[in-house]
Amino acid sequence: MSAPELHPDLEPLRALLGTWAGSGSGSYPTIEPFAYNEEITFGHVGKPFLAYGQKTRDASTGLPLHAETGYWRPAGSGRLEVVLSHPSGLLELQLGTINGSPAGGGAVIELRSSAVVGTPTAKSVTEVHRRFELSADGQVISYDVSMAAMGLPLTHHLHAELRRQA
Amino acid sequence: MSAPELHPDLEPLRALLGTWAGSGSGSYPTIEPFAYNEEITFGHVGKPFLAYGQKTRDASTGLPLHAETGYWRPAGSGRLEVVLSHPSGLLELQLGTINGSPAGGGAVIELRSSAVVGTPTAKSVTEVHRRFELSADGQVISYDVSMAAMGLPLTHHLHAELRRQA
Repeated sequence: MSAPELHPDLEPLRALLGTWAGSGSGSYPTIEPFAYNEEITFGHVGKPFLAYGQKTRDASTGLPLHAETGYWRPAGSGRLEVVLSHPSGLLELQLGTINGSPAGGGAVIELRSSAVVGTPTAKSVTEVHRRFELSADGQVISYDVSMAAMGLPLTHHLHAELRRQA
Repeated sequence: MSAPELHPDLEPLRALLGTWAGSGSGSYPTIEPFAYNEEITFGHVGKPFLAYGQKTRDASTGLPLHAETGYWRPAGSGRLEVVLSHPSGLLELQLGTINGSPAGGGAVIELRSSAVVGTPTAKSVTEVHRRFELSADGQVISYDVSMAAMGLPLTHHLHAELRRQA
């Protein structure tokens, strides 16, 4: 199949399409700080959503750490809906906004969980906030993730910067 | 990275690993019946979960229809936890059992949603049951999906058969 045309609803997110690679660091009161390398992909099939996936590896050992997959759905008027699955047994339903236009770079996407659901063996996570920033030249994504987990209040957890891959 | 060793917890699901392709049919009281082609992949990274993805295309036009991504987590004693994201804005948390050993073929996996969560613009789905059957020779997966949606009771929705790809 040749690449389909981008669905018009995805224009505000066009600059996210492709593969991004970089590094990040994580911390939380219940764990040791850690450093990781990451790859993020955003793809589309001509329908009004982006397919999102990310994988991280330990910066020292190269071993797999985390992964997420899901879909980003523009919901009109700059609103964004995101559904995510985690191999740790968590599901996130995120709602938020696209400020600025990623089509031209320089955008900020802010998401807050409206639901976090976990399997019986998953760790307890009750709230996740995510903030993505796309640089004005459209070449760098940085993000921050905060979460309320293990009975703690919303606390900063992850920061990473990724560069667009050729 | 070379392929890591399979995590021991995944032994009961070893025969699912790889790519599967085939066709299916769908129906629901609120829509026209439809036929589709499908590809399913199960992968692993050496950790105790399978990464699951599927994509379907209209059997006539070849255009993309549905997709799902998520993770399958063995939870001990033949129990299975599955987390799934849909581009339609749905999240499924599925709990169930592995009967028989997919490692040797001839297994049945039955899953029932313990939670279905949707974004504000998603269609209302309240319950999803999934049943996967792996043939005794380990070469064919068939599945059935029933769902309660749009205010209707649990109703059969999908059936498909997929063959292991080389």
